[in-house]
Amino acid sequence: MNILILGGGGFLGQKLALKLGASPTLKGKAITQVTLADVMEPPTIEAPFPVQTVTCDISDAASVATCVTAKIDVIYLLAAIVSAHAEEDFDAGMNINLFGTYNVLERCRALGTVPMLVFSSSMAVYGGEAKDPLGDHSYPNPQTSYGMQKAAGELLINDYSRKGFIDGRAFRLPTISVRPGKPNRAASSFMSSILREPLNGREAICPVEADFLHYYLSPRRCVENLVKGAELNAADIGQNRVMQMPGKTWSIAQVIDAMTAVSGPEAAKLIQWDPQPDIKQIVSGWRWDIHADKALRLGLNADDTFQDNIRYYLEDDKPND
Amino acid sequence: MNILILGGGGFLGQKLALKLGASPTLKGKAITQVTLADVMEPPTIEAPFPVQTVTCDISDAASVATCVTAKIDVIYLLAAIVSAHAEEDFDAGMNINLFGTYNVLERCRALGTVPMLVFSSSMAVYGGEAKDPLGDHSYPNPQTSYGMQKAAGELLINDYSRKGFIDGRAFRLPTISVRPGKPNRAASSFMSSILREPLNGREAICPVEADFLHYYLSPRRCVENLVKGAELNAADIGQNRVMQMPGKTWSIAQVIDAMTAVSGPEAAKLIQWDPQPDIKQIVSGWRWDIHADKALRLGLNADDTFQDNIRYYLEDDKPND
Repeated sequence: MNILILGGGGFLGQKLALKLGASPTLKGKAITQVTLADVMEPPTIEAPFPVQTVTCDISDAASVATCVTAKIDVIYLLAAIVSAHAEEDFDAGMNINLFGTYNVLERCRALGTVPMLVFSSSMAVYGGEAKDPLGDHSYPNPQTSYGMQKAAGELLINDYSRKGFIDGRAFRLPTISVRPGKPNRAASSFMSSILREPLNGREAICPVEADFLHYYLSPRRCVENLVKGAELNAADIGQNRVMQMPGKTWSIAQVIDAMTAVSGPEAAKLIQWDPQPDIKQIVSGWRWDIHADKALRLGLNADDTFQDNIRYYLEDDKPND
Repeated sequence: MNILILGGGGFLGQKLALKLGASPTLKGKAITQVTLADVMEPPTIEAPFPVQTVTCDISDAASVATCVTAKIDVIYLLAAIVSAHAEEDFDAGMNINLFGTYNVLERCRALGTVPMLVFSSSMAVYGGEAKDPLGDHSYPNPQTSYGMQKAAGELLINDYSRKGFIDGRAFRLPTISVRPGKPNRAASSFMSSILREPLNGREAICPVEADFLHYYLSPRRCVENLVKGAELNAADIGQNRVMQMPGKTWSIAQVIDAMTAVSGPEAAKLIQWDPQPDIKQIVSGWRWDIHADKALRLGLNADDTFQDNIRYYLEDDKPND
């Protein structure tokens, strides 16, 4: 299996590559190569198969053609302009999230090799007039341009699959927490930083109230689900290739309590509560009563408790002092 | 009010222009000009205001810029590659139905004049795993590329409206019957021709069974709804600018009985029953248990009985012998 990860320099792309390296088969076949592609040369990883790193701008069809080749069996399309960034810079969001997706799909269609394509959609497709509870068959009424672009991407993935141009699978990712690294321009960035920073002895700002509910998944479980998503047989998925990836709903108070239970009472004292209207304006349009019936039936999983999310961060990602 | 009709050479565009001519105000303001734009120079119409006819290819952004100007107050975006055509020619459907819509929206955004944009979507957005009954808040799981392109267009209309780039309104049109003129490449074409041709003394082929159910609206009522759609106050529509346009569900047997009730028993004898697998394959993915709650609440209407559809055809469209 020759695997291409678009967005391979991002934290999920890197973790996915490491996971493939640790268990180097997919659908019962040996992985022969992984290519990590991103707008900037991605870091390589240690693996029992050759790992290539390349630059690729998915908003440029010619650039896509250099890394999406007839040799590729499975494409992970994780590259994205995240929510707050896409809200600020409408063109960047359209060019990467919508037209970038289209460029990858068109390249697959032109090749005629019907590669598998695993697409990271988002729970940001929900919102507006869509009724709770939300899930696989809810009306996507996104309240951000990012959500709109992901919802349009889902439609493309389904139609290109129906037409036989790709074998597509699209997963609406919950908010990933605890996310390693630095805060990014996702409006949800604080949902990791209020845990990650205190766990590293640093202060963090919580821009919403303690009763703010949200739907979470750990990076470890998300990557496991992305691998399982590629392992699924197309026939078991059916004609609708889009589904919610499992997560669990917790309040800010609950995720902080989980941190305290795992790591002691000091960390929570490093959180400063400072409501931020611009962040609240975006995240208040997001939804939390979300169900992932199809994915759970197909064997994908959520975390058991948020204490697991904290432990996975400490085991997988916390920098050594 | 300066009004542009993209797709102004089509039968709905022409009827809409005639309707505006017959009642030359919109939102309480006098209509000062109507421009009919289409890929081929559209026929002009008689009206109490100046009528311009221009050629415009919405798949070409430069062409869009020539007719979408700062003077335009209201744009009707009716131009489309219809269902069977978009299914055969995937690129044509993408270029007109999706990228054409994007080009018009981008031009509006660049102008900064926040024009009203009335978009003709379609009940073809429904299908697949979406559950009956269907309506404003159903999951769009289209089973044709045409439906996918319209569903993606709806997402764009909503987001461009949310961002304040346009004042958008998108209506999912029922199948329009009795449609005048000649059969076209819509898979639904027969749903008019089995009535129109016999009403003109000609034979017609019915490619589906008599119990085939479908959701219909007359051209006269559709045009009235398109005008009402522009008259609505944005605040009354709310954040979701997309809604089902009202129609009614009838079987093939019922629409033929309506024809017999209005015009006598001879017409139905001209129908040949000849099942066609390619047409059935498309239309069997369409749905008929459809509700237009929001549009009905806002004052849009369906036909009372299918006999009205027959009568409107005879009054408005039947060629003189």
